Amino acid sequence: MTSTIPLAEYLFRRLGQLGVGSIHGVPGDYNLTLLDYVEPSGLLWVGNANELNAAYAADGYSRIKGLGALVTTFGVGELSAINAIAGAYTERAPVVHIVGIPARESHDSRLLIHHTFNDGEYKRFAQMHAHVTVAQTRLWDPRTSPQQIDDVLRQCLRHSRPVYLEFPVDLVSAPVDEKRLELPLEGVHEISLNPELDNVLAKILSKIYNAKQPIILVDGEIRPMGVVDIAQKLVEATNWPTWASAFGKGLLDETVPNFHGIYQGRFDNPEVQTFVKEADLILCLGPHFSSTNTFAYTSIPRAEVTISFTDTQVDLGNDLYRDIPAKQILTRLIEDLDASKLQSVGPYPNLPHEYKVSFSEVASDQPLSQDKLWRILANFVRPGDIVLGETGTAGYGVREMPLPKHTRLFTPVTWLSIGYMLPGAQGAALAQRELSESSNYFGIENARTILFIGDGSFQMTAQELATIIHHNLNVVVVLLNNDGYTIERCIHGRNQKYNGVTPWRYLEAPSFFGAPKDAYTSRATTWGELNEIMNDDRVKDGKGLRMIELMVDREDAPKGPLLHLLEVQKARDKGVSAVNGK
Amino acid sequence: MTSTIPLAEYLFRRLGQLGVGSIHGVPGDYNLTLLDYVEPSGLLWVGNANELNAAYAADGYSRIKGLGALVTTFGVGELSAINAIAGAYTERAPVVHIVGIPARESHDSRLLIHHTFNDGEYKRFAQMHAHVTVAQTRLWDPRTSPQQIDDVLRQCLRHSRPVYLEFPVDLVSAPVDEKRLELPLEGVHEISLNPELDNVLAKILSKIYNAKQPIILVDGEIRPMGVVDIAQKLVEATNWPTWASAFGKGLLDETVPNFHGIYQGRFDNPEVQTFVKEADLILCLGPHFSSTNTFAYTSIPRAEVTISFTDTQVDLGNDLYRDIPAKQILTRLIEDLDASKLQSVGPYPNLPHEYKVSFSEVASDQPLSQDKLWRILANFVRPGDIVLGETGTAGYGVREMPLPKHTRLFTPVTWLSIGYMLPGAQGAALAQRELSESSNYFGIENARTILFIGDGSFQMTAQELATIIHHNLNVVVVLLNNDGYTIERCIHGRNQKYNGVTPWRYLEAPSFFGAPKDAYTSRATTWGELNEIMNDDRVKDGKGLRMIELMVDREDAPKGPLLHLLEVQKARDKGVSAVNGK
Repeated sequence: MTSTIPLAEYLFRRLGQLGVGSIHGVPGDYNLTLLDYVEPSGLLWVGNANELNAAYAADGYSRIKGLGALVTTFGVGELSAINAIAGAYTERAPVVHIVGIPARESHDSRLLIHHTFNDGEYKRFAQMHAHVTVAQTRLWDPRTSPQQIDDVLRQCLRHSRPVYLEFPVDLVSAPVDEKRLELPLEGVHEISLNPELDNVLAKILSKIYNAKQPIILVDGEIRPMGVVDIAQKLVEATNWPTWASAFGKGLLDETVPNFHGIYQGRFDNPEVQTFVKEADLILCLGPHFSSTNTFAYTSIPRAEVTISFTDTQVDLGNDLYRDIPAKQILTRLIEDLDASKLQSVGPYPNLPHEYKVSFSEVASDQPLSQDKLWRILANFVRPGDIVLGETGTAGYGVREMPLPKHTRLFTPVTWLSIGYMLPGAQGAALAQRELSESSNYFGIENARTILFIGDGSFQMTAQELATIIHHNLNVVVVLLNNDGYTIERCIHGRNQKYNGVTPWRYLEAPSFFGAPKDAYTSRATTWGELNEIMNDDRVKDGKGLRMIELMVDREDAPKGPLLHLLEVQKARDKGVSAVNGK
Repeated sequence: MTSTIPLAEYLFRRLGQLGVGSIHGVPGDYNLTLLDYVEPSGLLWVGNANELNAAYAADGYSRIKGLGALVTTFGVGELSAINAIAGAYTERAPVVHIVGIPARESHDSRLLIHHTFNDGEYKRFAQMHAHVTVAQTRLWDPRTSPQQIDDVLRQCLRHSRPVYLEFPVDLVSAPVDEKRLELPLEGVHEISLNPELDNVLAKILSKIYNAKQPIILVDGEIRPMGVVDIAQKLVEATNWPTWASAFGKGLLDETVPNFHGIYQGRFDNPEVQTFVKEADLILCLGPHFSSTNTFAYTSIPRAEVTISFTDTQVDLGNDLYRDIPAKQILTRLIEDLDASKLQSVGPYPNLPHEYKVSFSEVASDQPLSQDKLWRILANFVRPGDIVLGETGTAGYGVREMPLPKHTRLFTPVTWLSIGYMLPGAQGAALAQRELSESSNYFGIENARTILFIGDGSFQMTAQELATIIHHNLNVVVVLLNNDGYTIERCIHGRNQKYNGVTPWRYLEAPSFFGAPKDAYTSRATTWGELNEIMNDDRVKDGKGLRMIELMVDREDAPKGPLLHLLEVQKARDKGVSAVNGK
């Protein structure tokens, strides 16, 4: 006899099999019965304050756990979330967007039901989502629904991009075959798609063995491509000088001696720029060449010496080979690589490393300044922590931080939607806790999620602090109060009123959002005050939400593109191109 | 010699000509130079906390002033706002969504600039907006740009629906002919489009003169159709029994003796239902027959006795005449109507009116309950006030309130996106202040905007309180604390955890969001406490933000659809159809 389960349970158990432990989202009147199945299926219901935040959080969660999911309601809910889904698409976060939609009968009869445009047209929202998701499906016939669910999940995982799933309210408890849950979602073997694979591999190995000044550039798409471990092995096996992009930073063990931080293109030290320019081979892993991730395109390696590995092709300068996924060829490469055949070209070059600054190097009564702030804050980070730097000065600042093993970093990459990082921190912290509880977290206990965020960004999505509080997530929020959108001031309008924000009493946030009245908060204006805070056990080893406000100058920014733009503006004292980073 | 002005100034001065006094929005790196022209063009820059809120606020503003506008930035900003634009489309709020986009060169070269999908495709956002706006344009050639601006503004006004305008950052200061600003946007004469107009008018007058039990139903599209004044005249000239829909309530003078509140379909008094069913003529002005606005379709008048007036056609039961806008035919109708020819059919029928409840009718030590709450709160409302009831129990509650002259009401109509009303209140209050300052506000001083909102909705967009505070808007926020999404509990899952929200310390909001430390806040649990608050001069006649928290039971709702659903659920103690209002 065939054992059946409700379709909703099928979906949630499938997600559970794939490592999803929590469902983000907001209840709404077309998803309520669907939500009845979340916790009985063994998943946690997060319950965010709004849908944009829920989707941001699911994105943050997915980047840590490999898959995230949220549930919204038809029309109003899903459209509120769509900007975050677009961000997940852009930066390749695998998020399943499940939308509870009206009963099929309502669609068929073009009922003028609420949450529609009052014109009987029910399909616009799906059409809008088609622009920002890699696959879409509308469950309609229970005979094919489990297959449709599997198909979109497979696409989500394969492309590491969001998918869109419409779930009619009258199908929630439709019976489906339970046995199907035993079928694995993907075949175990990756077949070789391109007959030239061996040939290409041989070419690459030949270039590797002949290189005299080779380097490795690690970009952020190694995460969605699933080659983080292989990249790590390659960096260690070659011992070649290695740099990351902002997107790639935090994915590898950055404590190895041949790791040199982020390659900053024309903003980097001249000797580094020269070394990179003179390289005769650059292995570029997971390139993602957006303006922000490439220091306005100046860190993009020269094509003629570069081999770049993406998830669909390998590019050897002028030879482009399609249908050779990075995972396939890098797996073979690391197996076949014979380190003894690498050129020995004298001692390891003298290249700068990332470094921290200690409090002994600053005067304790002096105000905080971003030239040293980030390298001082780096002392606070411990193995296992997740560090997030929101778009703005914080996002540039965290790029300077040397990171211990097993840390992860979120920085502005391409989408740059301010407001992302606070809910993103909620999702990341929840994923971190789940990993930690499954004793799958490198044996690390009390790992923390540390969010660095400007005041303007904080205002966008501040209410998600309540979710962090409610689930007692281990989050340290470091708010940079610089009186508005300093990143925009760098770009244009440094004295314009519109770059200001309304002044809040930020440290009242934990209490307002429901934290215990004794939740830790403090403010630092000077290095001495910051020192005290960073060494306070309640901050370092506490639990739950802690919040710190750092007072920084409204025209201060970390060294690099932002400060450069600001200085250009100050010099001219009038407009520059409004295009960031150009 | 031709005098030129920058294209950005052209846009903002055009908006100013059309009554827009303030621009909502959020700065972003493709709109900064555009924002440089807002205040020099004589407009106020609002500066919202995020884009969704900005668009909600522009919607609220537009419903009071007749046109609203917001500026967002490419990708991240505009997509954050899109759910609110969809709501404006659905409920016909004329909002101009201006998006600052990258320089044209970036599009042409498919530059992988930030805020794109990192794939060179720049047009997806416009395609998404095409689903939720009535006209779209991308400024590209300064020779046609002023014309394009005029065209979309015309569409916005004509259809009272949002339009979408992309403004490349490199066109901001492009010179255009200033003289064009002197051309009026619309022709002064409305031509008659349908040769049958006179014939149709005669038919309608004949039906009017022959009606023995006629009534008038006023729906909310009389606002976008621009026939509020004519509707008022018709109600007064005929003295026929008149009801509003939820969408229509607050548009007319409801103190006239022949106004009987909202017609509630099957939830109304039996005698009212009978009277409406027996009517031999129903003039239905501006119909908008969504589920929520029609008590699940039960208040829709019988087609065979109804003449309905929309902005494109007149429907006389089986005779449908296209291209006869309501404004055209109703203008003629009110001119030609000879009240002496109306049937005299005895004394005015005995039909119930809306009524208030006084504090003498409740025990001061008893807890607040929604059966009487709204009729008691009605005592607080004064001429000129704007009352908003957010989707949830508040949205149903405000439907019961008798309203003084010159008040306006916002209730859930069709889009029902929770979180709308708080930013909506910001926009409405700002529009109210502008009207009031232009001494165009019926001679009323100190008019207030009063927002009734549940805790769950409040959490969605709470940060917009900061904007209300910053601009010192005259807003009274009445928060109903019922421990979560009671409207959802009515529909399904009355004891489910997912319908809860995180517990906040709501009355700390004004301080957190930057109000003076002595900003008025208070909480009422009993009728006595509420009485004291409602009679406190600081609440009644104060300025700026005042905030009141009302503690109500989590399973309490106003009489009507919600309470009905809740009672059905309690009776069955398990799920009902998750479709609201069915």
